[in-house]
Amino acid sequence: MVKVFKVGVNGYGTIGKRVADAIVKNPRFQLLGIVKYTPDYSSRIAFKKGINIYVPAEKWSDFESQGIKPKGTIQEFLEESSIIVDASPNGKGAANLPMYKAAGKPAIFQGGEKPEVAELSFSAYCNYDDAVGRKYLRVVSCNTTGILRILCVLHREFTVKRAKVLVIRRGADPKEDARGPINSIKLESIGDVSHHGKDAMLVLPDVKIISQAVVVPTTLMHVQYLDIDLGQPVTKSQVIEALSRYARILLVDPGKTGLDSTSKLTEAARDLLRGRNDIYENIVFENTVIVSENNVSLLQAIHQESIVVPENVDALYAVANIKIPFEKVVEETDRLLGIGGLKDVF
Amino acid sequence: MVKVFKVGVNGYGTIGKRVADAIVKNPRFQLLGIVKYTPDYSSRIAFKKGINIYVPAEKWSDFESQGIKPKGTIQEFLEESSIIVDASPNGKGAANLPMYKAAGKPAIFQGGEKPEVAELSFSAYCNYDDAVGRKYLRVVSCNTTGILRILCVLHREFTVKRAKVLVIRRGADPKEDARGPINSIKLESIGDVSHHGKDAMLVLPDVKIISQAVVVPTTLMHVQYLDIDLGQPVTKSQVIEALSRYARILLVDPGKTGLDSTSKLTEAARDLLRGRNDIYENIVFENTVIVSENNVSLLQAIHQESIVVPENVDALYAVANIKIPFEKVVEETDRLLGIGGLKDVF
Repeated sequence: MVKVFKVGVNGYGTIGKRVADAIVKNPRFQLLGIVKYTPDYSSRIAFKKGINIYVPAEKWSDFESQGIKPKGTIQEFLEESSIIVDASPNGKGAANLPMYKAAGKPAIFQGGEKPEVAELSFSAYCNYDDAVGRKYLRVVSCNTTGILRILCVLHREFTVKRAKVLVIRRGADPKEDARGPINSIKLESIGDVSHHGKDAMLVLPDVKIISQAVVVPTTLMHVQYLDIDLGQPVTKSQVIEALSRYARILLVDPGKTGLDSTSKLTEAARDLLRGRNDIYENIVFENTVIVSENNVSLLQAIHQESIVVPENVDALYAVANIKIPFEKVVEETDRLLGIGGLKDVF
Repeated sequence: MVKVFKVGVNGYGTIGKRVADAIVKNPRFQLLGIVKYTPDYSSRIAFKKGINIYVPAEKWSDFESQGIKPKGTIQEFLEESSIIVDASPNGKGAANLPMYKAAGKPAIFQGGEKPEVAELSFSAYCNYDDAVGRKYLRVVSCNTTGILRILCVLHREFTVKRAKVLVIRRGADPKEDARGPINSIKLESIGDVSHHGKDAMLVLPDVKIISQAVVVPTTLMHVQYLDIDLGQPVTKSQVIEALSRYARILLVDPGKTGLDSTSKLTEAARDLLRGRNDIYENIVFENTVIVSENNVSLLQAIHQESIVVPENVDALYAVANIKIPFEKVVEETDRLLGIGGLKDVF
């Protein structure tokens, strides 16, 4: 019989609410509940959905006065969880770590935390086997996840020597009505490189990865430009074929499908009635794949809100030390999230 | 004594009005006037400025009824011009060519025309000497001009073998209130590459230049990512030093100046009281210049409305066959337009 792990999700923002929903879909895990600090609209929606809400003891009455009956306190949350997914705001995860350690509970952190928060920075296509049995994992950020899926697939197939990445970052998430830019293309950093490449190299240390980023006025998805030097000459069809074998990478032909922008991709996700119009897959624009000897470049769209959800679920398998091989883990995660089905549509 | 050439500007849109103003500033040329087809606000402003307006004979009364007294007809415009700058809408230049030929007048076309419209596609830093004495030139488009300034400088100094370019294109010009996207990152093309690279190779045929482009919701400037393989290893300071020697390339350090976005660059141009807040220079973000052996990459901002203005003026020198060397031509063009002065400010 499959052991059911109780997973507590600390933080119910962009990532936390999606991971909570993903856990509900997966019979190996039970969603113990979520931690909320304010009785806002998302607490109310979670409560209406029947999700258990744990709150700081001193906030109990704030929730009750809003008609939201908490299930328990944070102390009870820590005691009852078998594994915690920390999806709290950037940097808050590190502050929570001592609490998880004191309770003796394993935890999965997000890419907004510094790498030191965990034993290993994690991206399933790259280092699942190394993650199995670990107590603390950090799922790398949305852009780094998007980069690493491609690089690790190509590294496995052809060996990647070096990659340069330009991230064209969305300015804000759809709900963030106070962020910009409205009419500008902005450097993400005044340094020479962005953090994505360094972060990716934590997971794939034998490849030199250099990244830069600009921020643009859109909320839907990032677009990334990857320029990759392989250890051997390849053909375009070899690259396409290799990428096609992985369900979390979806090659889309804009000429055939009309899907030539992040807004049209989002509309397709809406029409497919995907929850929250989430797109878990890297969307590689097939026409943009250019191959010349051992050099490959491509453009891909990355849905910043949802791309890390499958990797968070994989991380639960690893921390729970579930004894099935990597291929079976991602197949199961993907099937339960509906990943892969789009290959037939596009 | 310097011979004064009468220059007629056919078309008074984004490029035409700027080239007309540049001609007024240059004592070697006299602005004969402009051709307008409708008595709209820009006709009215030109008329108030004292610019001669030539109109189709059948539109004469339309202009007069709006209080705009035309100077003459298009036939008179053709007869009185010594050189014509065609800044009419994309593709219209080719339709105008037979008219210029019939009148025996040399003409300068814009990058929106197909290359066949002219004898030579032109970018001053690349092929001025080859352009001298030609009758028909085509100044390449804004993005291609931005790409070629960098490549031709580096080619001259270090030999460029290959360049890959990603253009992050502004969606619309400030005045264009019917274009998008509003909230999307869109591929410019469903083909494998954009036209910019092919266009650049017309001017720099011994370098392999591959370009792709995405369109984003902003009106101010393009941003370009250039990845360049040189014929020899270089250092970052050699690259910076080479680029710094050319007035139309301005290296800006965002850490020192705070200029880390196209909106802040535009604000600086406004504060400097540049006409129409035009930025004639490639703005290379100095922090983004990454050099590794013979590979150089950088990000630069390109003001799509004004970047081709100096090259249009240079093209007039070439077509007028003015007997001064290339260095003197660009120095004179730059000085009269105020290019180069910003090096002291930033």
